[in-house]
Amino acid sequence: MRNGGGASMSIRKLTMRTPDEAEAVFYEAFQHCDSAVMEALWADGDVVCVHPGSGAIIGHAQVARSFTHIFSNAQRPDIQFSVVQRVASDDLAVHLVTEDIATGQGAMARVLATNVYRKYAQGWLMVEHHASVVQAGSQPTTVQ
Amino acid sequence: MRNGGGASMSIRKLTMRTPDEAEAVFYEAFQHCDSAVMEALWADGDVVCVHPGSGAIIGHAQVARSFTHIFSNAQRPDIQFSVVQRVASDDLAVHLVTEDIATGQGAMARVLATNVYRKYAQGWLMVEHHASVVQAGSQPTTVQ
Repeated sequence: MRNGGGASMSIRKLTMRTPDEAEAVFYEAFQHCDSAVMEALWADGDVVCVHPGSGAIIGHAQVARSFTHIFSNAQRPDIQFSVVQRVASDDLAVHLVTEDIATGQGAMARVLATNVYRKYAQGWLMVEHHASVVQAGSQPTTVQ
Repeated sequence: MRNGGGASMSIRKLTMRTPDEAEAVFYEAFQHCDSAVMEALWADGDVVCVHPGSGAIIGHAQVARSFTHIFSNAQRPDIQFSVVQRVASDDLAVHLVTEDIATGQGAMARVLATNVYRKYAQGWLMVEHHASVVQAGSQPTTVQ
């Protein structure tokens, strides 16, 4: 269902029917360090990605390469995600998401991500991911 | 033009005709530490704000209070902003923006912000601001 292309080895774009489905696929790809799926869930063109503490990476190929680089240096991370807030129009959706990432020895890092999805003819694709680490001891907020 | 309310002392919501106008007002309010304008340019309801390194603040009153708190502890900051990327539908707009903030003694901090605006009957209002510091020495990106 999710493979918009032909054989599973040549995924070009995924077919995702809702922003929530796209988000689930994104975190599944992250969790499994799956570069092919990650590449296939982003829209073409000037998509943009901000990894924690980093500058902006613009363009499909550049964003895909950044994830391949991250995945090549990572164990499969244990990520739990939870949507804090959704704002949507007919063809654009913005989610604020908490990512709780196990960093080993029982430690956890909390990341907040703004994920933006856009509706195309074949379905919803990711167009932005902006992630930032929530520093320990940051001021109390409504998200614990 | 921008005052949707009556007297200028009782701004309730601003009237901003485009996302770019809303963004200019946001950074003007930031630069001038103007809590009243800041409060008036955010939509009501479950708007969300992530200050650099912090958790998510949800709700109009809570977000407005967070800016009042920041402004009470700040000199008027020197902020230059530049839009890196825009994604928009008829009634929702997402901008990725660089903020270059002079931090004194000639030092600069670079922040990346995702700003989200929504169109209401009276015009465009802010519904999300997610900011993160670009750490010195972060990997090269397409935004210098």
